[in-house]
Amino acid sequence: MELTIYLAGQIHDNWRKDFKEKATSLGLPLQFVGPMENHERSDQIGEDILGEQPNQILKDEAASKFNNLRTHVLLNKSDIVIALFGEKYKQWNSAMDAATAVALNKPLILIRPESLHHPLKELSEKSQVTVETMDQAIQALAYIFAEK
Amino acid sequence: MELTIYLAGQIHDNWRKDFKEKATSLGLPLQFVGPMENHERSDQIGEDILGEQPNQILKDEAASKFNNLRTHVLLNKSDIVIALFGEKYKQWNSAMDAATAVALNKPLILIRPESLHHPLKELSEKSQVTVETMDQAIQALAYIFAEK
Amino acid sequence: MELTIYLAGQIHDNWRKDFKEKATSLGLPLQFVGPMENHERSDQIGEDILGEQPNQILKDEAASKFNNLRTHVLLNKSDIVIALFGEKYKQWNSAMDAATAVALNKPLILIRPESLHHPLKELSEKSQVTVETMDQAIQALAYIFAEK
Amino acid sequence: MELTIYLAGQIHDNWRKDFKEKATSLGLPLQFVGPMENHERSDQIGEDILGEQPNQILKDEAASKFNNLRTHVLLNKSDIVIALFGEKYKQWNSAMDAATAVALNKPLILIRPESLHHPLKELSEKSQVTVETMDQAIQALAYIFAEK
Amino acid sequence: MELTIYLAGQIHDNWRKDFKEKATSLGLPLQFVGPMENHERSDQIGEDILGEQPNQILKDEAASKFNNLRTHVLLNKSDIVIALFGEKYKQWNSAMDAATAVALNKPLILIRPESLHHPLKELSEKSQVTVETMDQAIQALAYIFAEK
Amino acid sequence: MELTIYLAGQIHDNWRKDFKEKATSLGLPLQFVGPMENHERSDQIGEDILGEQPNQILKDEAASKFNNLRTHVLLNKSDIVIALFGEKYKQWNSAMDAATAVALNKPLILIRPESLHHPLKELSEKSQVTVETMDQAIQALAYIFAEK
Amino acid sequence: MELTIYLAGQIHDNWRKDFKEKATSLGLPLQFVGPMENHERSDQIGEDILGEQPNQILKDEAASKFNNLRTHVLLNKSDIVIALFGEKYKQWNSAMDAATAVALNKPLILIRPESLHHPLKELSEKSQVTVETMDQAIQALAYIFAEK
Amino acid sequence: MELTIYLAGQIHDNWRKDFKEKATSLGLPLQFVGPMENHERSDQIGEDILGEQPNQILKDEAASKFNNLRTHVLLNKSDIVIALFGEKYKQWNSAMDAATAVALNKPLILIRPESLHHPLKELSEKSQVTVETMDQAIQALAYIFAEK
Repeated sequence: MELTIYLAGQIHDNWRKDFKEKATSLGLPLQFVGPMENHERSDQIGEDILGEQPNQILKDEAASKFNNLRTHVLLNKSDIVIALFGEKYKQWNSAMDAATAVALNKPLILIRPESLHHPLKELSEKSQVTVETMDQAIQALAYIFAEK
Repeated sequence: MELTIYLAGQIHDNWRKDFKEKATSLGLPLQFVGPMENHERSDQIGEDILGEQPNQILKDEAASKFNNLRTHVLLNKSDIVIALFGEKYKQWNSAMDAATAVALNKPLILIRPESLHHPLKELSEKSQVTVETMDQAIQALAYIFAEK
Repeated sequence: MELTIYLAGQIHDNWRKDFKEKATSLGLPLQFVGPMENHERSDQIGEDILGEQPNQILKDEAASKFNNLRTHVLLNKSDIVIALFGEKYKQWNSAMDAATAVALNKPLILIRPESLHHPLKELSEKSQVTVETMDQAIQALAYIFAEK
Repeated sequence: MELTIYLAGQIHDNWRKDFKEKATSLGLPLQFVGPMENHERSDQIGEDILGEQPNQILKDEAASKFNNLRTHVLLNKSDIVIALFGEKYKQWNSAMDAATAVALNKPLILIRPESLHHPLKELSEKSQVTVETMDQAIQALAYIFAEK
Repeated sequence: MELTIYLAGQIHDNWRKDFKEKATSLGLPLQFVGPMENHERSDQIGEDILGEQPNQILKDEAASKFNNLRTHVLLNKSDIVIALFGEKYKQWNSAMDAATAVALNKPLILIRPESLHHPLKELSEKSQVTVETMDQAIQALAYIFAEK
Repeated sequence: MELTIYLAGQIHDNWRKDFKEKATSLGLPLQFVGPMENHERSDQIGEDILGEQPNQILKDEAASKFNNLRTHVLLNKSDIVIALFGEKYKQWNSAMDAATAVALNKPLILIRPESLHHPLKELSEKSQVTVETMDQAIQALAYIFAEK
Repeated sequence: MELTIYLAGQIHDNWRKDFKEKATSLGLPLQFVGPMENHERSDQIGEDILGEQPNQILKDEAASKFNNLRTHVLLNKSDIVIALFGEKYKQWNSAMDAATAVALNKPLILIRPESLHHPLKELSEKSQVTVETMDQAIQALAYIFAEK
Repeated sequence: MELTIYLAGQIHDNWRKDFKEKATSLGLPLQFVGPMENHERSDQIGEDILGEQPNQILKDEAASKFNNLRTHVLLNKSDIVIALFGEKYKQWNSAMDAATAVALNKPLILIRPESLHHPLKELSEKSQVTVETMDQAIQALAYIFAEK
């Protein structure tokens, strides 16, 4: 039994690469999917496909459609959603993806530093588990397959 | 036909009171529900009901359960969700409530200043309509009932 | 038991007014809802609320959001959807509303002239009943309440 | 991860063949399904299976059942629906398939010439993305799998 | 709290009238709905509304659409479905309505003479309760409201 | 793409064997499932597993549980349900399985002799297609895969 | 806005009466429903309606059908489920009703003495809130309506 | 066709090992999943991943989150749930898993000694089949695949 994991959250550093490597080193039968991690491409994708837009808002709106298309398809395919929140950025789309997973009856693992516990308390309460580090999230995934 | 509107978003000023008064002055058949607007009580509700908690995180966790209970019940009862985002605060629970509404097939009206268009672009794309002011949101509600 | 009926279809003449009057004259316990019937206002609503848009496509896009908001809310509230197709106009939004009703397990009554049977054959097959005149649709509604 | 794509829309030219070839040339892991593209057979299928029908309407009705059977099965199997609208034909069944996909939580990609923006504005608003050319739709599919 | 009860089953005698009278005499807060009980009208309704049909099968097909419209609407409105089977008639539409209720998570009360236990054993197993008489079904309804 | 077909209907002759052979000879990518076709074992399965029951009704009730377990699992796995009705037997469980399929959004193909058109008219109306022979049902399945 | 509360849990003392009185004294707009609280009648209801059964197991089975009918109907009507667990009794039907509520997206309030925290830990984790006393549960309900 | 079976129930002895061996010896195409069977690890998993907790209740709460994560994922993947109840232990999480399966339209096989028939009567009524021994449950699984 292989599980598909959607890695939601910010795309400003290489945390997904680290996460996948750690999971792979444990030999867990997991397939990872997630958003476009090239931030610039993620912001440009609307104009890349549709051509130049009249203004910055419409450029953003166009980009958001293709980013949401990707998320929509891949989230539907996933068994578990992991959302990582960091100190920087608004990350409202991460909160959106996390809440969508919960509403679709897909378990959510929330990773956040303790310093964010107050603003994330309601989302944490909706998650299946909340942890502080990637290692803890990987242990949670490993536990699903553990036999002893 | 009366509609029930859940007013999601920050609870740090009196925007809901203004919103209701404007809607009322137009005679729209609307019933408004939403989160506890007394911020201090919202943060204290866990300890108010369950007693003192071992630490701040657990105090927050306790509070989040009662806040989410309220939201869970009232969101289920609603026909439309309006989420207002402002410049301050993380507002991740607002994003969560907004995305939950969309997943439950309830239309979402997003109110946000133009300055927030970039971080909110994906949530905006999921909303039914995005506007910049409360007046525009009220006009959107009025249009549902308009006959000419 | 009162039923709520969504009257989908073109908004270029007064067919809904006739329909409601005929149903009312029979004393059927029905409440009617539907799209904005003032065509000009329906096309202008985006700019009316959001202000002038950069071009005609964006004006249309803005209008469609408020029109779909109205339809989204009122269709969710309906027990039956009636869609009337005529010889003129593309009426793709009528087909969209009709198919959405079917997918939401709400019975669809399709009214169309016999001349349109070929292009509407698949939608007709998805409807609960297909008739040619408003009078027949009203008889269908009356039959739901008939006791002998 | 392979995705299944339902190609809705008119069946009067070979656009699906072109579409598949372009997607194949990019090496995307896609499986394509769609309606019967032989228009004559699509119109005759009712009588081909059930025998001669009393009149043209019943011939159409019979055909629509087998066409909808095919669509029903294949749409349920799909991850994404692409609907292409052209200048000719009523294409109400395309609008129906597109709206059904949205109601089933399957993302919709709408392809339409700019000239059709007005009559398609409500369906466009319901789609996940709207583009003008097949190439743009293929780029949207490619973006789902893109790693950088 | 008032409950709506759909009375499925054959329409060849006055069992629904008896049933309603017995329930009424107990003062239970129930509203009853069901199919057209005038058998001849139920068979004629297709031609009554659509006009004469080419043959008997098409006359039946037309009638079935209006009968299913009625059932579709009223079953959606119901809290409980009661299906009565008797010795005569095929009653496949009764089995269909009963199974539809179960699939929609509405509890089913099956009334059937002991002599029919063998052919109805699978449907009986799907019902919430199976009884042999109308009086027993009414007692089951009364038990929902009983306080001691 | 392989489809799974549930063959509902009476188990008193070998129609399923014929059906599978015909489908196989056409090379269609189909997997067939269905109820226990050994009638005696189907009636005995309750006592075979649970031991002797107090009376005939309880023996039937026990058997129906295991038969419904089989149907429940296999129907959930199916893409299409085919239900064959014949002149003999009550076949209420066939009507139940057919209606359950429709409610679960799985297309239903109904096979029945023309002589049964009247009692099956409502179920026929709910089916995706109704045919009179097994050959016609197989042609309907073949049409789903046909390319020209 | 009135809410309907299902009071699940053991029926061996008068806790529901106390609960309702406390809620009433606060003027909360609540309607309470729940299982038959007369324990003897709850155990006898199968034989009361269906007549004497062959043995104790079948008597229990018959009773469980009518008890589950009541729960099925009233749980469907509820907005919130409250489940109280005490030191005595197995209370597996309480756990069943509680889990059913969660699966139906109805928030669960769990009341249990601290001494039961270990065996109830998984159900507690699924609940929206877990408290130790009826007073705390009533405060949770009051918080849904509180304005400051 | 391979089926996935979730083995719910107590984890205090090796019943799952026996069960799998018996099923394997019959060559049934089954894949088994279930909770962590190492009881000590199941109780410690919260602290193993999150570190020491302030008190016993919070240790339990932490453990329950990871246990429910595992169950949530694996139950979603299952076709059938088997729940075994024994004389010892509260087993409320088994009742919870069993009821969740029923609510998700997955058939439930309940195994319990006759001595528990009274407290389990409502859960038994909700199950698809109730048996007394593992051998009987395995026969039920075998019957799904049996051809004669």
